[in-house]
Amino acid sequence: MKLGVCYYPEHWPESLWADDARRMVEVGISLVRIGEFAWSRIEPEPGQYQWDWLDRAIQTLAEAGLQLILGTPTATPPKWLVDQHPDILAVDEHGQVRGFGSRRHYCFSSATYLRESVRIVTAMAERYGHHPAVVAWQTDNEYGCHDTVLSYSQAARTRFQQWLAVRYQHVAALNQAWGTVFWSQEYRDFTEIDPPVSTVTEANPSHRLDYRRFASDEVVRYNRTQVDILRQLSPGRDVTHNYMGFFTEFDHYDVARDLDVVSWDSYPLGFTDEARGGTSDAEKLRWLRTGHPDIPSFHHDLYRGMTGRWWVMEQQPGPVNWAHWNPSPLPGMVRLWTWQAFAHGAEVVSYFRWRQCPFGQEQMHAGLNRPDNVLDLGGHEAMQVAQELPALPQASRQRAAVALIFDYASHWAVRIQPQGADFNALHLCFNWYSSLRRMGLDVDIVSPQAELDGYALIAVPCQTLGDELLAERLATSGAQLLIGARSFSKTLNATMSTPLPPGAMSDCLGIQVHRVESLRPGAVESVHLGEHTLSASRWKEWLSLSPGTAIEAHFSDGQPALVCRGPFRYLACWPDQELLDACIQRTAAAAGLTTLPLPEGLRLSRLGEVTFAFNFGPEPQTLPAPADARFLLGARTLACAEVAAWR
Amino acid sequence: MKLGVCYYPEHWPESLWADDARRMVEVGISLVRIGEFAWSRIEPEPGQYQWDWLDRAIQTLAEAGLQLILGTPTATPPKWLVDQHPDILAVDEHGQVRGFGSRRHYCFSSATYLRESVRIVTAMAERYGHHPAVVAWQTDNEYGCHDTVLSYSQAARTRFQQWLAVRYQHVAALNQAWGTVFWSQEYRDFTEIDPPVSTVTEANPSHRLDYRRFASDEVVRYNRTQVDILRQLSPGRDVTHNYMGFFTEFDHYDVARDLDVVSWDSYPLGFTDEARGGTSDAEKLRWLRTGHPDIPSFHHDLYRGMTGRWWVMEQQPGPVNWAHWNPSPLPGMVRLWTWQAFAHGAEVVSYFRWRQCPFGQEQMHAGLNRPDNVLDLGGHEAMQVAQELPALPQASRQRAAVALIFDYASHWAVRIQPQGADFNALHLCFNWYSSLRRMGLDVDIVSPQAELDGYALIAVPCQTLGDELLAERLATSGAQLLIGARSFSKTLNATMSTPLPPGAMSDCLGIQVHRVESLRPGAVESVHLGEHTLSASRWKEWLSLSPGTAIEAHFSDGQPALVCRGPFRYLACWPDQELLDACIQRTAAAAGLTTLPLPEGLRLSRLGEVTFAFNFGPEPQTLPAPADARFLLGARTLACAEVAAWR
Amino acid sequence: MKLGVCYYPEHWPESLWADDARRMVEVGISLVRIGEFAWSRIEPEPGQYQWDWLDRAIQTLAEAGLQLILGTPTATPPKWLVDQHPDILAVDEHGQVRGFGSRRHYCFSSATYLRESVRIVTAMAERYGHHPAVVAWQTDNEYGCHDTVLSYSQAARTRFQQWLAVRYQHVAALNQAWGTVFWSQEYRDFTEIDPPVSTVTEANPSHRLDYRRFASDEVVRYNRTQVDILRQLSPGRDVTHNYMGFFTEFDHYDVARDLDVVSWDSYPLGFTDEARGGTSDAEKLRWLRTGHPDIPSFHHDLYRGMTGRWWVMEQQPGPVNWAHWNPSPLPGMVRLWTWQAFAHGAEVVSYFRWRQCPFGQEQMHAGLNRPDNVLDLGGHEAMQVAQELPALPQASRQRAAVALIFDYASHWAVRIQPQGADFNALHLCFNWYSSLRRMGLDVDIVSPQAELDGYALIAVPCQTLGDELLAERLATSGAQLLIGARSFSKTLNATMSTPLPPGAMSDCLGIQVHRVESLRPGAVESVHLGEHTLSASRWKEWLSLSPGTAIEAHFSDGQPALVCRGPFRYLACWPDQELLDACIQRTAAAAGLTTLPLPEGLRLSRLGEVTFAFNFGPEPQTLPAPADARFLLGARTLACAEVAAWR
Repeated sequence: MKLGVCYYPEHWPESLWADDARRMVEVGISLVRIGEFAWSRIEPEPGQYQWDWLDRAIQTLAEAGLQLILGTPTATPPKWLVDQHPDILAVDEHGQVRGFGSRRHYCFSSATYLRESVRIVTAMAERYGHHPAVVAWQTDNEYGCHDTVLSYSQAARTRFQQWLAVRYQHVAALNQAWGTVFWSQEYRDFTEIDPPVSTVTEANPSHRLDYRRFASDEVVRYNRTQVDILRQLSPGRDVTHNYMGFFTEFDHYDVARDLDVVSWDSYPLGFTDEARGGTSDAEKLRWLRTGHPDIPSFHHDLYRGMTGRWWVMEQQPGPVNWAHWNPSPLPGMVRLWTWQAFAHGAEVVSYFRWRQCPFGQEQMHAGLNRPDNVLDLGGHEAMQVAQELPALPQASRQRAAVALIFDYASHWAVRIQPQGADFNALHLCFNWYSSLRRMGLDVDIVSPQAELDGYALIAVPCQTLGDELLAERLATSGAQLLIGARSFSKTLNATMSTPLPPGAMSDCLGIQVHRVESLRPGAVESVHLGEHTLSASRWKEWLSLSPGTAIEAHFSDGQPALVCRGPFRYLACWPDQELLDACIQRTAAAAGLTTLPLPEGLRLSRLGEVTFAFNFGPEPQTLPAPADARFLLGARTLACAEVAAWR
Repeated sequence: MKLGVCYYPEHWPESLWADDARRMVEVGISLVRIGEFAWSRIEPEPGQYQWDWLDRAIQTLAEAGLQLILGTPTATPPKWLVDQHPDILAVDEHGQVRGFGSRRHYCFSSATYLRESVRIVTAMAERYGHHPAVVAWQTDNEYGCHDTVLSYSQAARTRFQQWLAVRYQHVAALNQAWGTVFWSQEYRDFTEIDPPVSTVTEANPSHRLDYRRFASDEVVRYNRTQVDILRQLSPGRDVTHNYMGFFTEFDHYDVARDLDVVSWDSYPLGFTDEARGGTSDAEKLRWLRTGHPDIPSFHHDLYRGMTGRWWVMEQQPGPVNWAHWNPSPLPGMVRLWTWQAFAHGAEVVSYFRWRQCPFGQEQMHAGLNRPDNVLDLGGHEAMQVAQELPALPQASRQRAAVALIFDYASHWAVRIQPQGADFNALHLCFNWYSSLRRMGLDVDIVSPQAELDGYALIAVPCQTLGDELLAERLATSGAQLLIGARSFSKTLNATMSTPLPPGAMSDCLGIQVHRVESLRPGAVESVHLGEHTLSASRWKEWLSLSPGTAIEAHFSDGQPALVCRGPFRYLACWPDQELLDACIQRTAAAAGLTTLPLPEGLRLSRLGEVTFAFNFGPEPQTLPAPADARFLLGARTLACAEVAAWR
Repeated sequence: MKLGVCYYPEHWPESLWADDARRMVEVGISLVRIGEFAWSRIEPEPGQYQWDWLDRAIQTLAEAGLQLILGTPTATPPKWLVDQHPDILAVDEHGQVRGFGSRRHYCFSSATYLRESVRIVTAMAERYGHHPAVVAWQTDNEYGCHDTVLSYSQAARTRFQQWLAVRYQHVAALNQAWGTVFWSQEYRDFTEIDPPVSTVTEANPSHRLDYRRFASDEVVRYNRTQVDILRQLSPGRDVTHNYMGFFTEFDHYDVARDLDVVSWDSYPLGFTDEARGGTSDAEKLRWLRTGHPDIPSFHHDLYRGMTGRWWVMEQQPGPVNWAHWNPSPLPGMVRLWTWQAFAHGAEVVSYFRWRQCPFGQEQMHAGLNRPDNVLDLGGHEAMQVAQELPALPQASRQRAAVALIFDYASHWAVRIQPQGADFNALHLCFNWYSSLRRMGLDVDIVSPQAELDGYALIAVPCQTLGDELLAERLATSGAQLLIGARSFSKTLNATMSTPLPPGAMSDCLGIQVHRVESLRPGAVESVHLGEHTLSASRWKEWLSLSPGTAIEAHFSDGQPALVCRGPFRYLACWPDQELLDACIQRTAAAAGLTTLPLPEGLRLSRLGEVTFAFNFGPEPQTLPAPADARFLLGARTLACAEVAAWR
């Protein structure tokens, strides 16, 4: 459990560097990320590297005892490079080139840009790869930020065709897989196939899903190219990349396979404001200055599973600049978020950024220090965490009893054909996760390819794309399963599953979904579960049941809403919160798990033998700690924005 | 009264075809539409026709006793054709080419595409034109779907100039007609005139109206080219085209002049969800699973007038895939819609589609059969209709006592200059139609060019474009007239009428509209009619009255709201529902028509000597049938989603 | 105090002209604007001028005793010119050319268009420059209307680079000023710099602010080129340009420096409907047919300060055509608006237009006369004003006791980085202005460069961009200052101010803004001021106070909301109406000004020794006139839409 910070020596007079380094140590920081946007300083003219300033910056930080994470500067190619090679730029869905003047102005499919990236990464790794203070590398920065995964350049078109040729071998196989006979979309050759863009109405969903897969694979390839260089030229260092929140444009599991450590950038207030997880307007006001309680941990629990080791690379330190509205975190929240990350197993929490920068696009983004170099609230809270850290035992996060499956491609498939305008698989997965957390359960979010054995409960909110293999692995996992609507409704090619949904799971569930309905806002379906009348909205399925499948809840028209067959449950709707909580409780009980419905805003997390509590709500809460609990942080009554930990 | 179905043999293994044909007959289907999206199968390589599969499909269906409607496959030109001739593609208002990958990817003005269309239609008509089972042809599919009437290609620009030269002969006449002296828009030659697109602010309304007329005429020309081939090569067969719902981008009366039968595609739930007729959010919820009661019949009554003979070519069979939300029709609605179409005079009701297709863009669109080939609810309801059909006498729909005038060009003129953001002439016409139907009246929707004599009541909700000729025909029709706001406010060139509105009707009405107001939502004007205080919104006119014109209703400020002079009434506002109903009742009474205000959701339609009743509402209704009524369908008490018919 | 009218002889048969002129005089009009859209009639073929018709039109008007304002016709270059020189067209932010077909289809940076403008203006000025009836010229028409200030043409790119080279001399200075080291945006040469458009995410704010400054300067240059010709060829005539309402795309102070008279186009209902000043939906309904009371006077008081002399060039005469909804002004409002303009110091109020034009884009825009040439309501009200005018003494508007600072560049800076989606500096300035007016105060709206001495109270709602010089001038002005949030938060380069905001004002205020929050709708902060609990929304600042700075109001969390130090007050939020009124009253009291909170809809304005009252509200009001007041217009009780004036 270490603290870090993001630092930009190139933004400040060199005279400040040594004092900055000294004060970082004073705050309790041990790791510093630098360099990831500095290409125009490293290579101000084509081929003329200027290492001296970076040498000195690294030396200054190292001499203060700080360890370094070096970022490769490929997220911001300099103007001269773009002017020399306009083909490095991406093209948007309207055919417009996405130009220079901000960041991420490159196309993942550009051969030129890959070559130039190899050159600059090699140069940087050769220079600093063996520096003793350099302990890690970050490739690029926030792949896909500002919708930069999908590009429609000529290079992307050509590489997509090549990707398809590899995937399908024969165009007849592609025609079959995509069902191109529909609307005379048949191709005679891979070279006839365009990206699924600028069509008169929606393009073929299989075509669109493959384009997303291709684009994701381009990110994987681009990242791996950098990783390979770094591993060769800077052995023994961790290689990471900083992911974002609620970001699904590429398959993060796939990129993670090439990383030592996954890291991510945690901005709870911004993500709440932007409703990236489906936050309602009422929730945005409720969690205005704390952020939604489950937004940070959703990502902690998602990214932790990818490589085991994980960091927060950028932690929100105060108000940010990029959401529609940017309130200030309540005093205490920066500390709370830091402890929450550690409780979920983070090795490092690194703040963005050391000092607010008074110029450029992010000049309204707070740092640990104000622009006038006074330590800000976030800085004081970071320092407090640093002082508290020794009281906590170092521990690894244990495997949870509950797994929740999230699959990027399934989410893509629903985005491509939502069928109901407000059906978003990511939002639904987040709702399920939040319900599990409200019940006091620890959760691992996992890929459908993950090892599933040993979990007591597996939640499958919306695994649209399902095949026999996954069905078999789920069925034999030994866990109680709660499977959500639309799961296994499609083949891996985004065509309808055969037999009817839930396809390969229909036998073990003993059901067939023979009709689905999407429902506009205001169309609410009552659901009767025991003595309770709960509700669903957005989505309703019509099930046929095989003998032996039991109805646990039904809609007002008598149709089954929740069914159970052995250890398998299926929920045939988009549940409102109370219905979802009830389904989770019922499944957890069957799995032998104790649930503890928590007051609004209170969350518990276990790390080794320590239980952490976090209070996101406005009211103080009495903690459910045993009578003999030994408090390492806080006490039995937990105020707003406060943290407790006990053994 | 026959049932049909849309079928795609190319989507299914040939081994299924014979069984499909047998089961169609079993359901009671007698007509099958095929072929309209099959170009890539008919001509998989340039010039190499593959008829064998289609020969066998036709033979299989024919042998089962089914009759065939063949669709020309021009809505989906194959990729090789697009690659050979990129000039067949349309160009959108941003100058972007509308590419391959879905359907309707062609520009009506492309000479190349017309030539290629002639080639494929000729080939198909030569092959099957004399096949005994082929009883009808459908040209192309849903002209204009996905906003494909307007294109801004070079070909369209050139043909527009030619169209203008024919229309105006001399550019001076065009300058005069359009008023191009305004803002120095004068042209010296037809070749200077661009499509009215990419202008800095709105283009000249006369220019825009003529571009719409031109674009509509391009559809007429394109369709007629196909029709001419079919008539020559396949004599004795009906030629039809399948229109859409609430679709106004081309003048359907004009296209109909070349058809034997008008057909249309009826998707009540989708049209209700998309508010194409102006449905409010409250109405969308009220009619969530029945659709708005008047949406199907509005189109039945509109399209019936065009050629006399008309079909439903595609009837919604269950949930669809293309609206924002796609609920399931209430059980019974597929049957109800079918009977409603017959009651309004349909010769054929054909369902879309035989079996849900598990791949491609419409994989979530229900069919009569589920993807696993089990007969679905819609299929069972179709079968029930087939069994009920013999009980009903064959009858033609008689002329109604009420005509409602709907004019495409008038609607375009209002779209071009709405003056109030929510003023939509189509929505207003639909409101008037709905009011007439709530009063229990049967209605013919007619073109302003239609024969008007013999109607007892003519409703003119919003005939913006009016001339002396139409005024004369209305004035001498012998009917009671109810004329709505904005009628006769423009010349045929979309300039203001002289004298002041209602222009050529101002004398017989004895009014002048000397000022108009559009009103934002929330600005409601009270209207006093007898003892009732009713209301208007959106639009208010200020009238000057000639002696002899009587005020029947007035606004709160004393200005006239409804005036009457002999058989002519004028309503100077956008009426809210109760005011509209009151005006309709008053006019109907003057026309000697008996009105019968119906409970919400109940509708009556007369076919020959039979009266049909349809209950779209949630509550059972007691029908206003005479005591001695003989029920051919249903009984005196009509449940939700039920149909009755009595003599 | 004179009345004028806009007239288009080219729109009407020549036979009408003499009668029109006679009737203008009859109405009481003395000035007529003509010519500004007539290029295609003046030069129907390249180089072939047709002056005869215009000669006769001018002569006809002159002979009736009317004086003329001639408009240069450059807002509407004819089609042949555009076809000859496509490079005169502007390019939008998507790279699409903005074509012919409406108006303002030119790029301010086009060298070709500047040359052609010089040619036509010279020709016109040579022809009519010495005509005795020509008393004034209007350059072009409504610069910037339809978002035409910003263009991204090649010409604009090149001229921007040249503009930057002049401003910064060395690219290193630009890199420093813009902070281009952020995200590796550094430039090696001015020729590398593109317009800030088509970037992947937002471009650098300093870059964007400079592009706005450049674009504004292009308007200044273009206008000055015309002015120079007119001054040379038509000496002794006033040169004006007609500005628009709530229009901020160029710096109107800068353009005004080259004008003799500023004029503007006043459309109170349209501006209210379009919420250009931030009008809420409730206010839109409240002021549906009167317009917001402070919209006309906000512009009167803004534009008056620019050259001292000012006119209303286009006064709304009835319903217009261009807002989303276009209601009719209440009877009386055209007269009221006319008097309101005179009360605020207008020399001329000129109506748009003489007669409603029955063709072209504005055919639904009312005139003083109906299209059938009957004098309309607006015409009658204009005539009434003309008859009342002699009763009022000619007087100049005296300097007000209150100045409100509005700065175009500060507004741009906030638009570029709003930080909260609903923070709009123009709206905030309008709110402050409205509060001052509700308190019965007369106001001068002034530039930050204006002479500030002598005001009793200076309101600084949102002067984002501040430097030492302005701070010094404010501090030594002798006035009581009320300074709003975000003032002096940025340098002139749109980087954060040093020291912390309010930068150069922080010493005299004794505060530092060390954190800011933007707040979404619904997030309301209570503010305690004396015994009152008021509220703020949208924006909250966290202040550190120096000793000697007093807290006059605080937020619920105890932080200061309104602070005072000597004559300086700072308001650290976006105040809701009551809080703002309270702050204004408190500051006015300190300035020794008497405030008189007015009933809703009543407004007072003083002109010389005369006090005017205007009642925009629905209820009659008793006026606060002294007992011995002598009424020149109206009486002590003022009905809705009525005017009074007393001495």
